[in-house]
Amino acid sequence: MIKFGVIGYGYWGPNVVRNLDLLDGAQVLAVCDKSPTSRKRVQKSYPGVRVTSDAAEMMSSKDLDAIAVITPVWTHYELTKAALEHGKHVFVEKPFTSSTAQAEELINLAAKKNLKIMVDHTFLFTGAVKKIKQLLKEGTLGNLYYYDSTRVNLGLFQHDVNVIWDLAPHDLSIIDHLIAETPEAVVATGQTHLNGFEDVAFITLYFPNKIIAHINVNWLSPVKVRTTLIGGEKKMLVWNDLEADEKIKIYDKGIDVKNQEGLYNLLVNYRSGDMWSPQVDRFEALSHELAYFVDCITHDKVPFNDGPAGLRVVKMLEAADQSLRKRGALVYL
Amino acid sequence: MIKFGVIGYGYWGPNVVRNLDLLDGAQVLAVCDKSPTSRKRVQKSYPGVRVTSDAAEMMSSKDLDAIAVITPVWTHYELTKAALEHGKHVFVEKPFTSSTAQAEELINLAAKKNLKIMVDHTFLFTGAVKKIKQLLKEGTLGNLYYYDSTRVNLGLFQHDVNVIWDLAPHDLSIIDHLIAETPEAVVATGQTHLNGFEDVAFITLYFPNKIIAHINVNWLSPVKVRTTLIGGEKKMLVWNDLEADEKIKIYDKGIDVKNQEGLYNLLVNYRSGDMWSPQVDRFEALSHELAYFVDCITHDKVPFNDGPAGLRVVKMLEAADQSLRKRGALVYL
Amino acid sequence: MIKFGVIGYGYWGPNVVRNLDLLDGAQVLAVCDKSPTSRKRVQKSYPGVRVTSDAAEMMSSKDLDAIAVITPVWTHYELTKAALEHGKHVFVEKPFTSSTAQAEELINLAAKKNLKIMVDHTFLFTGAVKKIKQLLKEGTLGNLYYYDSTRVNLGLFQHDVNVIWDLAPHDLSIIDHLIAETPEAVVATGQTHLNGFEDVAFITLYFPNKIIAHINVNWLSPVKVRTTLIGGEKKMLVWNDLEADEKIKIYDKGIDVKNQEGLYNLLVNYRSGDMWSPQVDRFEALSHELAYFVDCITHDKVPFNDGPAGLRVVKMLEAADQSLRKRGALVYL
Amino acid sequence: MIKFGVIGYGYWGPNVVRNLDLLDGAQVLAVCDKSPTSRKRVQKSYPGVRVTSDAAEMMSSKDLDAIAVITPVWTHYELTKAALEHGKHVFVEKPFTSSTAQAEELINLAAKKNLKIMVDHTFLFTGAVKKIKQLLKEGTLGNLYYYDSTRVNLGLFQHDVNVIWDLAPHDLSIIDHLIAETPEAVVATGQTHLNGFEDVAFITLYFPNKIIAHINVNWLSPVKVRTTLIGGEKKMLVWNDLEADEKIKIYDKGIDVKNQEGLYNLLVNYRSGDMWSPQVDRFEALSHELAYFVDCITHDKVPFNDGPAGLRVVKMLEAADQSLRKRGALVYL
Repeated sequence: MIKFGVIGYGYWGPNVVRNLDLLDGAQVLAVCDKSPTSRKRVQKSYPGVRVTSDAAEMMSSKDLDAIAVITPVWTHYELTKAALEHGKHVFVEKPFTSSTAQAEELINLAAKKNLKIMVDHTFLFTGAVKKIKQLLKEGTLGNLYYYDSTRVNLGLFQHDVNVIWDLAPHDLSIIDHLIAETPEAVVATGQTHLNGFEDVAFITLYFPNKIIAHINVNWLSPVKVRTTLIGGEKKMLVWNDLEADEKIKIYDKGIDVKNQEGLYNLLVNYRSGDMWSPQVDRFEALSHELAYFVDCITHDKVPFNDGPAGLRVVKMLEAADQSLRKRGALVYL
Repeated sequence: MIKFGVIGYGYWGPNVVRNLDLLDGAQVLAVCDKSPTSRKRVQKSYPGVRVTSDAAEMMSSKDLDAIAVITPVWTHYELTKAALEHGKHVFVEKPFTSSTAQAEELINLAAKKNLKIMVDHTFLFTGAVKKIKQLLKEGTLGNLYYYDSTRVNLGLFQHDVNVIWDLAPHDLSIIDHLIAETPEAVVATGQTHLNGFEDVAFITLYFPNKIIAHINVNWLSPVKVRTTLIGGEKKMLVWNDLEADEKIKIYDKGIDVKNQEGLYNLLVNYRSGDMWSPQVDRFEALSHELAYFVDCITHDKVPFNDGPAGLRVVKMLEAADQSLRKRGALVYL
Repeated sequence: MIKFGVIGYGYWGPNVVRNLDLLDGAQVLAVCDKSPTSRKRVQKSYPGVRVTSDAAEMMSSKDLDAIAVITPVWTHYELTKAALEHGKHVFVEKPFTSSTAQAEELINLAAKKNLKIMVDHTFLFTGAVKKIKQLLKEGTLGNLYYYDSTRVNLGLFQHDVNVIWDLAPHDLSIIDHLIAETPEAVVATGQTHLNGFEDVAFITLYFPNKIIAHINVNWLSPVKVRTTLIGGEKKMLVWNDLEADEKIKIYDKGIDVKNQEGLYNLLVNYRSGDMWSPQVDRFEALSHELAYFVDCITHDKVPFNDGPAGLRVVKMLEAADQSLRKRGALVYL
Repeated sequence: MIKFGVIGYGYWGPNVVRNLDLLDGAQVLAVCDKSPTSRKRVQKSYPGVRVTSDAAEMMSSKDLDAIAVITPVWTHYELTKAALEHGKHVFVEKPFTSSTAQAEELINLAAKKNLKIMVDHTFLFTGAVKKIKQLLKEGTLGNLYYYDSTRVNLGLFQHDVNVIWDLAPHDLSIIDHLIAETPEAVVATGQTHLNGFEDVAFITLYFPNKIIAHINVNWLSPVKVRTTLIGGEKKMLVWNDLEADEKIKIYDKGIDVKNQEGLYNLLVNYRSGDMWSPQVDRFEALSHELAYFVDCITHDKVPFNDGPAGLRVVKMLEAADQSLRKRGALVYL
């Protein structure tokens, strides 16, 4: 039985507590939040759980095995460091840290102490991403050509980060997971309109083997869009995460080019066949992720969404920010 | 009665001939195409029209007032120049030319000869673009924040240009028309996969007053998308050109930010009201455009989609190409 | 403070308890369910609430003012009758009863005892139905021509009623509320395929003034559809309850017919103007309904979804069943 | 080479002439229409074709092998009869005739004269219907449960028939083709609002083996819908004819019921698997249909959409009308 303390009971924290509470191998002993209202909500829903406003107190609790850090990104480094220093495993909200330097320090500290870090890249545990990963592994799409994600909606404006740090970690962690290559370089463009943080931004990632990824994030869209196009040599895929029933559609469509002599003798053949929408598991991703974390702790396994995975995403975010500052300069990784 | 010769009877040429043929003030006297099959198609549909394979012969025809150049972009300069030199007005397919130098020379030549050039930016004559232009003029959207267009589908691969030169002229001419400002700089990223020309590309245009435009063009998409989001201070708009009936939707949605002392005192208010889809005229845009050309010739008026308009689009294309070569370098205009 | 006992804690009961629990003027003192699992769920979520498996015990509790009957329809009559006899107000799940005779008896009993009956026609309290009611009241649609609802999906199969008794009460209560007329006659057709109860059925209701209503209910549809078309003299409306943001669309479309002499001189004019999607309130309908019930009890007001409203729906269900037995015979109401 | 005369050059006639003109084995020698405007349109598009306003003249032309009757339904009987009497094969617009008596007389006459009648049930030649027919033949859906079609839009109002005679022949011919059984009985309901003809109507067809079909036709809908649900024991299908690319979707969804002792022991299992959208041929259906007619004449074959097929549709229309007059009375076929 892994005993958890959870720091942060705002928007996402209650989901972490609820899912841990339902797991057989886990138990939530304490929740920490600075807001009295949040602490009251904990007490009402979980009368048996300790509540506190003092993170330090929780860190030093002897009865806790692991800490879940569900707070704003600028607090991740400090809280995770303190937890590791007190010998606790850490489940930390994405993005992992505010800088690569912080991430590297935490990874080293965890290694030295033989503790687990899991970064909450929840999307990797959804039925949709699992299915896409499987299709790529099995070679269904053939060699990958491009990954193009649109993630736009109205708000929520963040007080401390721009739209890239708010929305792009989802896509970057999925891209890191699916493409499983290190990008060569990043280009980001965008604009601020309201509060000094970019609210519209576009990121291009150049990968080896001519794979290109693009992410469109926007806090000022009148409609919510969560659509990703993935083009491969053999097949192409559309993932619409807002569809209730047909999230993934695989198209037997493509283009074959035969080089012939001379420019105008190029032969282009279009293939256009059936479309197929595989059933996608509909469980709560966070529940599977937390069960996996408990399993990694219990059986001393390295989670695939560990500190280094979190670091890779932070590296891309940092590079995107650098590029954005220079209005689209190419930043090598 | 303006008498036309049309060069090029491939994909788009037949539409130009058909629409000219239906206009009261215009008459098609001759069609030129190198393909015997195309010439036969002309003869079958329009028994009274002269057909020829010799562009020079058409240029020197005394009975023609205007030439429509409906050929690949790399031929535009030479054909338009010849037509102007023979004293003909020119209606030329988009993009206007392959380079800004060519465009500037043609503009000067036309001015010297007192002849009209109209660049076929057909989209500017659609009911949808007319309606959006009107909404912007009337201030319905308030100050513009961003313009974000996605124009993707499977093929058609071009033999001589990349996906930017093939698909982006539509968006660039619309952006030029709607925003009516000169962009400060362009960033373009993209990738080639099949025949050496970029088949996936992303363009960002920085405009004055924090307006940002983005264009996503792709020949390798399994689904056809023609969607543009336009965000303004007061209202936001979605234009889905594939919708039969509700092409434009205007959302009474937005964000008001009040600056308060201190970072966390920022007040953000979301507005979310009704949606409204105005009826959009459903005529054939090309017909209106050609009637307008005839009218400009007859009454010696300067068309708004004249040579300089074509030049502005070519400038953006050239800059995008330059940026693309350097993987997203910022190119000032 | 109105003190409630709730009978039935299966699918819908927990929603009733949760919403009553959140109301200022109401308190849930006891919950009754025959299933030990359900009783445990109550105890876990609401440690302060009495649980029992004995409905009779709850009925005779002196401290209860009102009973919520959230059980299968064949138990409604008996449980409601017992509650009324013990002087309790009753909130009863739809459909009100299994027969008009039962409904009439309960209405009379409540009147004699001066007690309230509210039938849980939840849909009448949704933002969508409220908005449509308002549009009809204000005359926006003009005289009503037709109401056409499609309510289909896969399952859930009921053990005791056919698809009409399961799904059509929603539409019938909405039709009763919106049209506010008594139908003249009912025609129902349908078919059984699996368990002896009709799983596909179609109902036509003839109203005065040439208003016609049609309901398509189906437990065997591969896709979920919740769409209603409402046609009026002046405007027409589409209500798609599965849309998150644009549930209601009002079309400025219609047909004007001018009678001229002779058959072929009939002049038909089509109007086709803008579409407009008003914002619809997004609260939990059940919460508003229960607050309204508490208010009706407290201030001795007659709810509009009272016993007679429930009876009108049962009458239509009974007539539809009669017609269905005779494969579409016209049944007068 | 089959030589055709075409009577009627209004909305559909030009399509018939254009497709015949493109066929290798057919030739249009003459077109008859009472409207001078229509005759001028013929002359402009087909300078070599004879035009006339006199149907009798065309009937007696020695050089014609076949007549295409593309006129309003009330003229079909007379014109088809005259054509047959003059020894011409007949291609006749749907619905075949205004009554079963007329249809039977024409069938007998054609048989006596050894001439072909083909009724223009164009939909049977679309890629979508061909694919569905194939899926049914191969048993993909299993035993059929229901067929449910919605065919609604705004107008066009007809001057001489109600919405059933205008729109339902499409569905009835498809149902006749796909189900390939004679319906036992028909129930139809509907209402007139404007010009004395029903503009909204609902038809139920009872077939043997518990198959039920339903058709919803409406001239007063603000949106155009062309959607058919087909439920089978093994799989279910949605055919959306307005979709450009994914017209047919097949769902691996269904319900298995195991009968157990006692009402509440019924076991219902829901199956929910992948969805699959087969590619559907995109040719012009009318072209294939006319080629088939020419082939049937040339090789003396009986078309499957012959006179008796047309008669079966007219029988259903007549029965529906009878039922409609009595507000939904069951009419046996």
